Amino acid sequence: VGALEPEYAERRALELEEALGGQAPGTEGWSAGYRMVGGGVDLMFLHLRDTIEELTRAGEAVARSALAESLSLDHECLSIVELGLYGLTIEVARRVDPSDHEAFEAAMKAALSTESEKGHVRRRLEPRQPDDMPYVCYYPMDRRRDADRNWYALPLERRAALMRAHGSIGRQFAGRVSQIIGGSTGLADHEWAVTLFAADPLVFKEIVTAMRYDEASAEYAEFGRFFVGRRLSPGGLADLVVPEA
Amino acid sequence: VGALEPEYAERRALELEEALGGQAPGTEGWSAGYRMVGGGVDLMFLHLRDTIEELTRAGEAVARSALAESLSLDHECLSIVELGLYGLTIEVARRVDPSDHEAFEAAMKAALSTESEKGHVRRRLEPRQPDDMPYVCYYPMDRRRDADRNWYALPLERRAALMRAHGSIGRQFAGRVSQIIGGSTGLADHEWAVTLFAADPLVFKEIVTAMRYDEASAEYAEFGRFFVGRRLSPGGLADLVVPEA
Amino acid sequence: VGALEPEYAERRALELEEALGGQAPGTEGWSAGYRMVGGGVDLMFLHLRDTIEELTRAGEAVARSALAESLSLDHECLSIVELGLYGLTIEVARRVDPSDHEAFEAAMKAALSTESEKGHVRRRLEPRQPDDMPYVCYYPMDRRRDADRNWYALPLERRAALMRAHGSIGRQFAGRVSQIIGGSTGLADHEWAVTLFAADPLVFKEIVTAMRYDEASAEYAEFGRFFVGRRLSPGGLADLVVPEA
Amino acid sequence: VGALEPEYAERRALELEEALGGQAPGTEGWSAGYRMVGGGVDLMFLHLRDTIEELTRAGEAVARSALAESLSLDHECLSIVELGLYGLTIEVARRVDPSDHEAFEAAMKAALSTESEKGHVRRRLEPRQPDDMPYVCYYPMDRRRDADRNWYALPLERRAALMRAHGSIGRQFAGRVSQIIGGSTGLADHEWAVTLFAADPLVFKEIVTAMRYDEASAEYAEFGRFFVGRRLSPGGLADLVVPEA
Amino acid sequence: VGALEPEYAERRALELEEALGGQAPGTEGWSAGYRMVGGGVDLMFLHLRDTIEELTRAGEAVARSALAESLSLDHECLSIVELGLYGLTIEVARRVDPSDHEAFEAAMKAALSTESEKGHVRRRLEPRQPDDMPYVCYYPMDRRRDADRNWYALPLERRAALMRAHGSIGRQFAGRVSQIIGGSTGLADHEWAVTLFAADPLVFKEIVTAMRYDEASAEYAEFGRFFVGRRLSPGGLADLVVPEA
Repeated sequence: VGALEPEYAERRALELEEALGGQAPGTEGWSAGYRMVGGGVDLMFLHLRDTIEELTRAGEAVARSALAESLSLDHECLSIVELGLYGLTIEVARRVDPSDHEAFEAAMKAALSTESEKGHVRRRLEPRQPDDMPYVCYYPMDRRRDADRNWYALPLERRAALMRAHGSIGRQFAGRVSQIIGGSTGLADHEWAVTLFAADPLVFKEIVTAMRYDEASAEYAEFGRFFVGRRLSPGGLADLVVPEA
Repeated sequence: VGALEPEYAERRALELEEALGGQAPGTEGWSAGYRMVGGGVDLMFLHLRDTIEELTRAGEAVARSALAESLSLDHECLSIVELGLYGLTIEVARRVDPSDHEAFEAAMKAALSTESEKGHVRRRLEPRQPDDMPYVCYYPMDRRRDADRNWYALPLERRAALMRAHGSIGRQFAGRVSQIIGGSTGLADHEWAVTLFAADPLVFKEIVTAMRYDEASAEYAEFGRFFVGRRLSPGGLADLVVPEA
Repeated sequence: VGALEPEYAERRALELEEALGGQAPGTEGWSAGYRMVGGGVDLMFLHLRDTIEELTRAGEAVARSALAESLSLDHECLSIVELGLYGLTIEVARRVDPSDHEAFEAAMKAALSTESEKGHVRRRLEPRQPDDMPYVCYYPMDRRRDADRNWYALPLERRAALMRAHGSIGRQFAGRVSQIIGGSTGLADHEWAVTLFAADPLVFKEIVTAMRYDEASAEYAEFGRFFVGRRLSPGGLADLVVPEA
Repeated sequence: VGALEPEYAERRALELEEALGGQAPGTEGWSAGYRMVGGGVDLMFLHLRDTIEELTRAGEAVARSALAESLSLDHECLSIVELGLYGLTIEVARRVDPSDHEAFEAAMKAALSTESEKGHVRRRLEPRQPDDMPYVCYYPMDRRRDADRNWYALPLERRAALMRAHGSIGRQFAGRVSQIIGGSTGLADHEWAVTLFAADPLVFKEIVTAMRYDEASAEYAEFGRFFVGRRLSPGGLADLVVPEA
Repeated sequence: VGALEPEYAERRALELEEALGGQAPGTEGWSAGYRMVGGGVDLMFLHLRDTIEELTRAGEAVARSALAESLSLDHECLSIVELGLYGLTIEVARRVDPSDHEAFEAAMKAALSTESEKGHVRRRLEPRQPDDMPYVCYYPMDRRRDADRNWYALPLERRAALMRAHGSIGRQFAGRVSQIIGGSTGLADHEWAVTLFAADPLVFKEIVTAMRYDEASAEYAEFGRFFVGRRLSPGGLADLVVPEA
């Protein structure tokens, strides 16, 4: 488990950089990498593109990079961002060999620099992650379909009223939380892929708790896994993965 | 993880081509490969044959190809296509070593060319995937058997009425969605294997959402995993797996 | 992944043959191997013996054969055949390395020849698999124990009436389906191990569907996995695993 | 996969023997090994000690033996034996490499001889496994906590009455079944760890079936996995793992 | 599986020591390692820090140590300690290669000595584990959200009353049990992460059983896994992992 040779780590980093930058000219979208904490995973990648082929290519770019050797895919979700109808894939991965930290670090630096350096060649799709909200909280969810509490058996007006009340809670967090809501029905194992961004990760607990008491969520939402992390950025990366000692 | 030697990749591709083309003269059926996006899987194979022995042979052809070394089977479902009583097996696989992309690409090209070149020696079984609907959405499902909502305890007329209403939704998507409904009761872990084809993958979200509000599905359907992808074809393959850079 | 040396494959086959034939003189019972299709598994072994020690030995015979190197156990169920009180174990396995087909084929041939050649030294226990019904359908099941539908809280007469009606469906399939019902309560994770044999695998879908509408099953049965395959036999083996090309 | 060198197998056996015999002087307790049949597992170890540190040491003895290289832990449960307040851990394991039978056999012989030879240096804790009841049936269980059937919401008198009736079934099997009931609430994933011993494994099916119709179990018990096997003993070992051929 | 070279084991130990001690000056928090018994896991690490970046760094310190090579992460949970709003991560791990006991022991000694020797350079965050309560019991839990028993649909006064009664049980164990309650809603797959400390592990069974009959828990709590162990300390370590023989 000695240190990898610097040039090898460098090459792996370059490969990922090239991979993440390997977007066809004229296409739109953006990708981001996150350092996760808890949940048994280390990294999350989020890809927004305007066609399913570009989404496939974005995932392939990660899979073909040297970083993929150290990662085991844990969860992956395809969805459609509602208004703009853009595709979004989320991949969550765990490191297979956590002791190979040189390669991990190099790859993370590459993921980081890719965006900052190559950002000017891409047109960014909305929605975006606000620059002052580096923390992410991602969770898949479903509407409940039990005999007693069946969202899909409710009349339209009832669902609309529930969603209005649900939305008012979201508005209480306006400015503190930004979100991307992906619809996954027919596209993935869950019906929704929710991604929240915030400047303070404690806000994720606040908003999810508040919504849990909201009738739409309390009675009609099914939750499973929750993933929390921080976007990889030049300054933040050093703070996160380079030990002081 | 350097590039594989070209002749080795070529040999692997030829092996799969031979495997997928290794159908006994006089038998009927067709197979197809799909590049999946999301759901943690990379490839899906669909095999239609008129005997269980030929289905076994079709799956064996993939298992014996060099491609199998890079794949880990994730889901497999045997079913019977309703009217014609033909067998259908669906296999969904994840790449074990995603960085071995030369072999993956070569195998994908082989899967592609097999069909286009050898198509003339096979008689095709109905149902078929329409040429202008390259996208696929596959999901297994069950009828609900809860005490309060038990499909199998409903009287026949009630089930027939529910299915008529259910079918009317399907008809609204006529021309936009083509489907293969396989019955799996007693043959697999789920009761139905539904395969949808469309020219636009957004339609999968539309039709599955519409059906979810239909009473037959809202009250009596149990869903699990959903798999979405695109059929491998000469032009599409290059777009999908060969990076521009 | 080149072809194994013929003598090595031969040795592996001989080892399994010896293993499956390694039954102590004077003991009773039979074993069978099946080539499965779908369900993510490749092989199923069924062992009937008259003591738990002989059952252990039968499983050990497979585990010690060279075939075991290529297999990963997926499901195993101990049960007692009702009337005769004989033990039955079912093992379902998936190939770990599917590309090692020479060894797989050789082992399958061995499994086949073992029975045909050594059959004369064993006394066969009832129940048997009819010679003209080579297809198998195996599934574990439980009686429902929900608050609203609790089989174990029903009065004896009610259970008896339900079972009479249930049995009448089975009788409609007399001559088309033969079965072994193993009781597993207290012996395995499920309460019943049902093994059906038929000349036509479509019949499995017919009978299981018919029973699903029967009140005993509709209201009080819990199902999980279903496994379908064909018994390995001299003619059938060649058809199944030797490609024509 | 040739035969291991005899001295190596012997060394592995000695290591386990030493490990299982490595109990500090003055401590109490006993351990036992079982050859399991069905359930996908091969071995079960049961450890009774009077402190949690001694239990940890007992598990460590198995983990440090050469046998551990061939085993994959499948289930492990810590509990407290009710009256005497002694600790009990159950470990259930599957062989990773089933073809390495020399080492497996040697280790089994070691596990066997350890107890017979070193038994005189230990004081045995009650409860014990009766010498004439070599078969074991172990299962974890929980009390039901559903809204409609919630054991923990019943008044004390009701629970006492249910347990009296439940106990009367157990008494019908007095002399045919011996048991160790471990309480696991707050210590393991299940609330109870039940271990039954009998001279005839068929009795496990009888008693568990009888209890399933008892109201306390029918309405308020949740069951999961069941594990059945036979205690390793000098005579029994040879019968079980040494093939006649 | 011979003994590792002493200097190698020593180096691994030093690496972990350095890793666990690699906290930036001026930050607050503490970490602890536990030797677990049962539940299929060997070690648990608990990290308290005042920022999510420091929590990430603490987990990274373990992942980068040589110990990580022998461990497979089994469960990891991020939460916020309620009053002080500090972050807490719990990682539970299983040894991959249990026979490598020299490295395991050395790493455990390092984990132990780190804290005792370097404790003076850190300011400790509340809550703390009392010195006379070396045993730990950790479990994640959720509030029930069923149609019939939905915590999140109860009026505030009702929840307050239930929590008062619940708290009175906790107070009966004051002095015998110390606890850290982490809130995980929106941060992890469960809503709460409960960590109990006691001088006697039997008390965990007592308090969890007592609470299970409390209405708040009986009707509105969902439990899953429970993990029990003992904090690694100089004296305790030797007792636990060094066999007498």
